[in-house]
Amino acid sequence: MLTIPLDTTSKLALYEQIYRYIKNEIIQETLPFQSKLPSTRGLAAHLSISRNTVDMAYAQLLSEGYIEAFPKKGYFVSRITALNIINHTEFIKNPPITVSSKTVLPYLYDFSPFSVDLSHFPYQTWHQLSKNCLQDNADLFLLGDSQGDLSLRQAITHYLHQSRGVNCEEDQLIVGAGVDYLLQMLAQLFGTTCHIAMENPTYQRANKIFKGFKIKTIPIPLDSNGLNIDALERTDCTIAYVTPSHQYPLGIVMPIQRRIELLRWANKCSHRYIIEDDHDSEFRYKGKPIPSLQSIASCDNVIYIGTFSRAIAPAIRVGYMVLPKPLLEEYKIKFSYFASTVSRIDQAILTEFINEGYFERHLNRMRKVYKTKHDLILSSLKSSNLPIAISGENAGMHLVVQLTNGMSEESIIKRAKNNQIKLYGLKEHFFTIPKNYDSTFLFGYANLSEADIQKGIHQFATTCF
Amino acid sequence: MLTIPLDTTSKLALYEQIYRYIKNEIIQETLPFQSKLPSTRGLAAHLSISRNTVDMAYAQLLSEGYIEAFPKKGYFVSRITALNIINHTEFIKNPPITVSSKTVLPYLYDFSPFSVDLSHFPYQTWHQLSKNCLQDNADLFLLGDSQGDLSLRQAITHYLHQSRGVNCEEDQLIVGAGVDYLLQMLAQLFGTTCHIAMENPTYQRANKIFKGFKIKTIPIPLDSNGLNIDALERTDCTIAYVTPSHQYPLGIVMPIQRRIELLRWANKCSHRYIIEDDHDSEFRYKGKPIPSLQSIASCDNVIYIGTFSRAIAPAIRVGYMVLPKPLLEEYKIKFSYFASTVSRIDQAILTEFINEGYFERHLNRMRKVYKTKHDLILSSLKSSNLPIAISGENAGMHLVVQLTNGMSEESIIKRAKNNQIKLYGLKEHFFTIPKNYDSTFLFGYANLSEADIQKGIHQFATTCF
Repeated sequence: MLTIPLDTTSKLALYEQIYRYIKNEIIQETLPFQSKLPSTRGLAAHLSISRNTVDMAYAQLLSEGYIEAFPKKGYFVSRITALNIINHTEFIKNPPITVSSKTVLPYLYDFSPFSVDLSHFPYQTWHQLSKNCLQDNADLFLLGDSQGDLSLRQAITHYLHQSRGVNCEEDQLIVGAGVDYLLQMLAQLFGTTCHIAMENPTYQRANKIFKGFKIKTIPIPLDSNGLNIDALERTDCTIAYVTPSHQYPLGIVMPIQRRIELLRWANKCSHRYIIEDDHDSEFRYKGKPIPSLQSIASCDNVIYIGTFSRAIAPAIRVGYMVLPKPLLEEYKIKFSYFASTVSRIDQAILTEFINEGYFERHLNRMRKVYKTKHDLILSSLKSSNLPIAISGENAGMHLVVQLTNGMSEESIIKRAKNNQIKLYGLKEHFFTIPKNYDSTFLFGYANLSEADIQKGIHQFATTCF
Repeated sequence: MLTIPLDTTSKLALYEQIYRYIKNEIIQETLPFQSKLPSTRGLAAHLSISRNTVDMAYAQLLSEGYIEAFPKKGYFVSRITALNIINHTEFIKNPPITVSSKTVLPYLYDFSPFSVDLSHFPYQTWHQLSKNCLQDNADLFLLGDSQGDLSLRQAITHYLHQSRGVNCEEDQLIVGAGVDYLLQMLAQLFGTTCHIAMENPTYQRANKIFKGFKIKTIPIPLDSNGLNIDALERTDCTIAYVTPSHQYPLGIVMPIQRRIELLRWANKCSHRYIIEDDHDSEFRYKGKPIPSLQSIASCDNVIYIGTFSRAIAPAIRVGYMVLPKPLLEEYKIKFSYFASTVSRIDQAILTEFINEGYFERHLNRMRKVYKTKHDLILSSLKSSNLPIAISGENAGMHLVVQLTNGMSEESIIKRAKNNQIKLYGLKEHFFTIPKNYDSTFLFGYANLSEADIQKGIHQFATTCF
């Protein structure tokens, strides 16, 4: 008979104490293979507990395979070999809380080109929309359409048409958890045999994603009008990844003639595609936004891709892409069984945010906020008396500043760090560094206050002398 | 001089009307290459508008490359060739709203094995937590940790340890937008050269994902204890994808001895891994949940993967996986630059939901709700007098029902459809259909009311006679 020490004051149920005790005896082979267990009635009487409790413990041992039941004979320990390979520390205490490696450094002025200004975010509106969505729609907790909910796709399709001239039906639109995720989908659609032409310099995360899928990427040099089409023609690339409205990171606007040449390149073969990454097209401070390349394409070969990360907030993990119809067919075959990566509640909030006009008002407000900061950092840099050349202005959220005082990019970044300034070099955006490269920095200004922009640039100037 | 028809009542700004007019003249080559445009002063006087308006129009044409400025000479039309390839329908009217192809059919009884019961979802709590998160944390709109926010990873790590015995540090946990997304990441970590062993039948979406990455998957037969290890040993697979606690779709619980054999297989070579998909482990109606395979592994070679889709709601796009340390190193190299696919607001709500005890209470409530439905569908089926064999009971959200009346699976599904019953056949879960296969169905019951379960099974019975 098993004498099992039971603790009636324990949080553990009695049946679980019995189950654990017998399981450990089997693991430690104190109860070897073929040992007969006491009958449930007998053990219950021995321990002065209800038979039901013992039944539950035995049932659990049975379902996990530690014991077997033979009708009219009783319960026996199963043959379990090599128990020594089991981890005996199943019940370790909780692991200590470690501090995340991403501790924020005490920079006073962080010129990140990826930051956004959230101080003007309409939290109250978002909160109110969130409340409405949660109250009205219990079915938002069910799984939705894998491409994104129809109402959101309609809202985005309408917005893209109005603001960017994008021509598409909502069926061509795929909503996903960020541009990186959508690029991963594209990579799978293209397969590993295609070669992708990329601007040099470019958004290197896209390059990393393509390479992660074993797709060869080929850097194409830029001239003052953007991607060099002659160089593109000399490659065997079938895909070109471009940022025509505001080249990332240099800020070049691809003029109409170059756009036509790029479209002609794509039109030459039926399997050529252009990926137009329209990452910060909403923010142009001089005139109106440059129309998208997709809007003027006569053949269905431009994949338009964008995000709400910059126009709303980075934490809103919603990107979108417009697929040409031939690719859409393939997408539907390969991906329609995938669950959407975006929470339906977020989709519903965003739909209302766009449809009720909040998004447009927010964009108009932010354009003013960013323009003020843009003008201020530009004038601060110009009045700094540094030997610099500025480019990429009038749009986006950063300027490109080339410094010609002979100091290396690395040494300036290091010196700036000592002055509590975080600088972002251009170098890492290149596949290969061009000859006669001068130290160049991306100056993001979106999340700095006006006072900090002035102080930060002043501090930067002293760093360079 | 250009006479541009201006409409002062239009919503379009005057500068934009001028810009559009001249752009169209250039596209239609009414204004050919090298045509000189009127001076801004001259055109302004001619149209009786402010010079600033004309300046803005010209600036936009300049930035898009339609015209060029020559100092002291004026503005000239750029050389733009092959304009004919441009899409002239840039300003089409909005596309008509098409009805999504996924229209819900009028089924009265849908026995989907993937549905959940949301009628008991604590909407008020979720709403309140959502409100608190939005009010307190403006920084939730900034981009967070790519693995998921530390506080959420701590909450999940603690939960998995308590409820499933999973041993890991929060640094090993990756939060992502659903299991499908996490499996895609795993596929990229493994690379295309590995072969993955899968249970036959299995969760075919996982198979499709692996195949999408050109990874070869090899079906392994099951016996009454789950994956046949001898058959696994005869393959050159280095990865085994398994569902040991409740095999999907058959519902087999892998007993301890088979688990040990599987772990021994993995321990034999340093690059072997087991993917343990613990998809519905929270719901066990007899005894306590079966401990995870990961909890007893002595070597660091089990990838544990799970989701909140079933335990909370499918629309909460949050899954998680625990990576063994060698894979974690690789993950950090390949993916740490990726943005998280889960909204930080959702992460914050979920963290509170777990930490404040709501999750556990919700699970306890749902276990009771599902158990009642489970018992009811079981008794309804048993009293139907159909020639059936039932398996996979006591856990999860569906039963496996084998029908031995000689009718084919397809014909029963079709007949059921005519009776407004949606049935789910087992066949599609197989790589190859076994010999002597009898029509078998998965009966999900989670989202059916008790009355509908009884009526639906009654209706099903009449379909089969």
